[in-house]
Order: sequence, then structure tokens, then C-alpha cells
Amino acid sequence: MPSTHLNNIHIPTLILDETKAKKNLKKMAAKAAAQNIRFRPHFKTHQSAQVGECFRAEGVASITVSSLSMAQYFAEHGWQDILVAFPVNLREMETINDLAARISLSLLVESVEIASQLEKNLNAPVNVWIKIDTGYHRTGIDVKDADRVRSLARNINDSEKLHLRGLLTHAGHTYHAHSTEEIIAAYAESSQTLQDLRLELEQGGFAGLELSVGDTPGCWLSSDLGQVDEIRPGNFIFFDAMMFELGVCSVEEIALAVACPVVAIHPQRNEVVIYGGAVHLSKDSIVKNRETIYGYVAFPTENGWEFTSSENYISALSQEHGIVRLTKTDLKRVKVGDLIYVLPAHSCLAVDALGEYLTLQGERITTMLSCAQTDLD
Amino acid sequence: MPSTHLNNIHIPTLILDETKAKKNLKKMAAKAAAQNIRFRPHFKTHQSAQVGECFRAEGVASITVSSLSMAQYFAEHGWQDILVAFPVNLREMETINDLAARISLSLLVESVEIASQLEKNLNAPVNVWIKIDTGYHRTGIDVKDADRVRSLARNINDSEKLHLRGLLTHAGHTYHAHSTEEIIAAYAESSQTLQDLRLELEQGGFAGLELSVGDTPGCWLSSDLGQVDEIRPGNFIFFDAMMFELGVCSVEEIALAVACPVVAIHPQRNEVVIYGGAVHLSKDSIVKNRETIYGYVAFPTENGWEFTSSENYISALSQEHGIVRLTKTDLKRVKVGDLIYVLPAHSCLAVDALGEYLTLQGERITTMLSCAQTDLD
Repeated sequence: MPSTHLNNIHIPTLILDETKAKKNLKKMAAKAAAQNIRFRPHFKTHQSAQVGECFRAEGVASITVSSLSMAQYFAEHGWQDILVAFPVNLREMETINDLAARISLSLLVESVEIASQLEKNLNAPVNVWIKIDTGYHRTGIDVKDADRVRSLARNINDSEKLHLRGLLTHAGHTYHAHSTEEIIAAYAESSQTLQDLRLELEQGGFAGLELSVGDTPGCWLSSDLGQVDEIRPGNFIFFDAMMFELGVCSVEEIALAVACPVVAIHPQRNEVVIYGGAVHLSKDSIVKNRETIYGYVAFPTENGWEFTSSENYISALSQEHGIVRLTKTDLKRVKVGDLIYVLPAHSCLAVDALGEYLTLQGERITTMLSCAQTDLD
Repeated sequence: MPSTHLNNIHIPTLILDETKAKKNLKKMAAKAAAQNIRFRPHFKTHQSAQVGECFRAEGVASITVSSLSMAQYFAEHGWQDILVAFPVNLREMETINDLAARISLSLLVESVEIASQLEKNLNAPVNVWIKIDTGYHRTGIDVKDADRVRSLARNINDSEKLHLRGLLTHAGHTYHAHSTEEIIAAYAESSQTLQDLRLELEQGGFAGLELSVGDTPGCWLSSDLGQVDEIRPGNFIFFDAMMFELGVCSVEEIALAVACPVVAIHPQRNEVVIYGGAVHLSKDSIVKNRETIYGYVAFPTENGWEFTSSENYISALSQEHGIVRLTKTDLKRVKVGDLIYVLPAHSCLAVDALGEYLTLQGERITTMLSCAQTDLD
């Protein structure tokens, strides 16, 4: 049986295995250090000042976030070098100015229009990175469009309040790869095209540009991170069913689970119903052999959880219900009122949905989403 | 241009068109009243005491919720007759006893085991409904398994603290129908099989059993609600892109949108990027012509929003980014820093993700998820 704290759980609860998370963190930090690359981890995965302290203990001083409110939260918790890896939202100029006045703030820019609006409305200087699209096609300037990058770089250099730091990409297409070889190749190609672009710009007079890359699959799997200046992975701290299915991590490296009460059992179809739905796990999913999988299942043990088979998975989610398919063997170990542990499809979204953690030792860890979190920090 | 309040929005914000919502509510309430059926709306859609008051104004006194914490919230806001339409979670007996002591609480039971545990642990009586599966196969006893229902009914009748109210189903398979005719047929069939089961039980000596049904598609589209005692639709108050796509509502009846800032424009692929991702809209989606659609797009007007084409839609969501496909014509009306309005795929989940609303008049409406919501009620 797990510790008393965990056995007393009565509603869907995020469980953090700190030992696994710290091991993942040390591995990633050591790789970056060995290759003399700045480690600027993405904090959108955990959204927690307390978890952030584990990174500080590893020597991390620069971080990435995905919103200005997240930047404000971490600035309030002592982080002085924050990159907002999201296109500038002109409607939040007041927040940008608030942050620019008190920390070293880095923003992503991908158009002259945004650069001009920043120059016009900023009260203090900021660092800017030009967002480059190396194949994911979410946003950014196409890596082949050197003319457009050059023209934007010139505009930034002509401004007073924008300090051009370098070129940044997110090779998110590694999440859609079909093998680990494909991920490593996509990471290498993405970094290489960025290096080529930097060379072209250097020849055009823009010296000292840094390169920032970062996605968990590429950074975790590539032994050689390439000629880049910083990496920004985030998910690796916890991993999840998606990373396991992609072959990025082992199931033992997944550091996060959602404990969910079993509320009904349907032996005739090898299913159980859990209190744990879309509002707890998010509706993110993996497709495997044409089945949609919202998470894998593990069973609580004295020191954590035990994963027995990838045939135990969440097959459907309503707002509060989860439908769990179990093997005949594992179905026998479950009764109504038990807890099962879900290894979520996407840990970042499960964290966002639940807003706080319990460690395996029963310690409560808050995030920026916890109500009255400031009272508890 | 919209009202000043709405034009000042700087982050993804849930916008409620109260006029449309009230019109939807009046229509559903009037249909139930005309057929002399109790209207027990599902409050998981809005999760808001303030929105709940609109229902009270229509004479609603009985409500449905999907969790015990939701029951507690609405009990604190004066609701005295609450059905928790979710299998009993034995880990929350303390909350069940707290509620049973102060309101008329109704629970769903589908096994003798749960009935026995309730009888053993309850401090005050509760109403129970036997959960019947009429084809959705999420949970409940198969409608054809009259023996099992009879045996459970007997067990409940023998207990002191459980008062058997009737048979309840959720015909959620109407959400997977391919036409409005199919929805109406599925609703009729589901209700009919429940009536047949009641007849069989009556002949076995169980008199006075009520029937409770309810899903928005079936209740909204069926002109004849059948020989049932109560209906429990929820989504109809707001509707959403999924209900529009199913043919349940018109696009004009959708009462909820998420205002999202435009942060980048990619004219070469007819796309814009919005600040509005999985954490704001949820990853629920519709599949249409093999495209995954996370919501449709509307444009703000002076009095609300304007929908121009179902070719304007959200094609991808990351944690905070939304990728919007626009027609060439509509792309021209959008610039960086504008707001676009997303009609979400699933309004219940967007409400849960965002936790509060602004009305078109700029009034803030809180929910049970708002931090410090009690200060603002």
C-alpha cells in the first residue's frame, strides 16, 4: 500500500515522483554542461516555483516560459532572465513594460511590424530573438527566407530598445516523427539549417548571433546537440505517455501520474470507470494502431507506481469520467474505491488542468494556477 | 467595434452572449413545461451560481451536477435538490454525508456493492437512481438485463437510507449520430427501452419508478420528449461548434465564444496564430472531411460577433498557441493585435479551462473555478 497521505486521496490528484524528475533533470543539465551549451529549460511543463528551485539547484539561471503571466509569476519568485517563447501579444504591452523594467526579458519577434510596435511602446530595453520556422510550420520566418530575416535583423539593430540576441526555433515536428532515428535526424537538420542561416547573416554583417533550439525529443535523444548556444526543452522533467510512445523515454522515466478513484467496473468488456476525465487529464491523446489513447495505467505500490502493460489504457474521456481498458489479469486486481494511476498522454496539460501536485511523500506542491498559491509558497 | 470593456481584453477570455443563452434556456424550459416533465438541467456546462440564477428565474428548482464538489458549490448557493450524475465515489463519503445532511441529494447507483457501502456509511437518507445503459456503453446496467436491475432495486428497497426514485440514463451516443433524424430516433429508442424496463419492474412489484433522461441533442431536437419524468440537458444553454456541426443548433444559437488576440499572420498559408491554446479551449475537437476542427471563428461586432464561414476554423492547438485557417477574404480583415472570437468545439470544457466569463456588456461572471469567487458573488 502507498503512504497514508496518498491512500487518503479522494479526488483526481497529480502525483509527482521527485526522484525520477530530479534524475531526468540532472541528465539533461549534465548533457548541456558537457557541451558548453546554455540550459534554458521551459517552465510551462511544471508552472511551479517549488519545482523551479530544483532547476536552480542544478545551476539553471535562465528560463523559458509560454506566457507573460507565467513570466510575471517566475519573476516574482526570483528569476531574472526569462524568455517568453510565444509571439509578442501587443495587447499586453503594459505587462511587457512591467517585466522589462525589472528583469532581463527576452521576446520573440518575427515581423517588422511587431518590432516597430515594440520600439514605439517599450519603456525599457528587451532582448529579442528572431523566430525561425525550420519545418514545424506553426509560426516564424521560413529558415530559407534569409532576405526577410536580414531585413528584420536590420530593423531591430536600428531600434534603440531592442537588443538582437539571435535566432530561435522550435522543431516541434519531432513530436510527429515515427522513430527515434527520425527525431535525431530532424533535430540535426533543424539545427544545421539554423547554423547555415546564421552564417549567411554573419557574412552580411550581423556578428555574434546566438542560436536557441529546443524540444524534448531532439534534445533528449541527440548525443551531439550541435553548434547551438542554448537549448529549451521542458517536458523531459516529467515525460508522459506520448514521449514513451515516441520512444523518447522509458516508462520508468515518467515522473508524473494522476491518481484516480475507480467508480465502476464492467468485467464483461474489460473496462473500469474512473473519476478522472477531460477536466483532469486534458483531451490530448496518442493514436496507436488506430486506437486513441488518453493515457496509460499504472497501479499504486508502496514506493510509487507499477506499470504492467501498455494494454492498460484510457480509451475515452468525458468531462469527469475516464474509461479504462484493462487486461483480464489486471482487471482482477481492481475494485470499486481503489485508486489507479494514469500516466497522462501529455503531462504539461495534466499539470495545467490540475494545478498542483502531491509528492510520493505527501507534500503539496503549488503552481501559478493554485488558488491563493502565494499563501503557501 | 465592440464595447470598450471587450475591446480592452488582453488575454484569452470567455465571452457570454446572455441574450442568446436566455433564449436557449426559455425554449428548453418551455418544452419541458408544456409536456409536464421536470426540467433538471445539468449545471456542469456553466459551473456558475450567477448563471444558475437565470435558471431559477425560469422556475427551475432541481439541478444536475457531475461532481460532489460541484454539488457543494451549488448547495452553498441555495440549491436544495441536486442530482450527482456520476457513479458514487466511495472515497468521498464525508462529502456525501455533508450534503445528505443539508439538501435533498440524489445519487446514481449501478451495483449492489455500492448500494451496500452507502447503506453502511450514510448518516442521512439519500435518493438513488439506478443507472441504466441504453446504448452509450460508458457505464450503467444494460437496459436488457432486467434481472440485475430487479435485484439491485430489491437491495435498495431493503435498505433504510436509500430511497429508490427511479431509472436514469444518458443517451450520450446521440453525440455520435450522423443526422438529426438519427439523434431523434436514438432519443426515442433510448426512452422507449427505459419505459419497457419500468413496465417490467412494475409488473414485478416496483411501483412509482420515475424515468430520468437527458442529453442536449435528443432533448433539443425531439418535439415529443416521451413518457419520461425528467430531462437533464446541459450544453443547450451555450451550445458550441460540435452541436452546430451535428445539426442540433444553428450557429446563431451559440451563446459562448473565446476572444483571442491575434499574434502572427501567415498569408502564404492563409493562417493566423492566436493566443488561445489547449489550456484555454481544451483539445476537444470535431472531425469534418478528415480535418480536425478545434473551433470555428467569428469576428467581433458592435453587439456581439459575426460568423462568416465554416472555412474559418482552428486547425491545431499547442499549449498556448492556436492555428487558425481563414478564407482569403477573411484573412484580409485581420491584423496583429486584433481579437478574433473562437466558437469552441466543446463549450463545457472551454468554461472549465477559463473559469469565468465576461458578458457582452463587460460584466464579470464567476464560476466555482474562479479563485476567490466567494468574494465576488
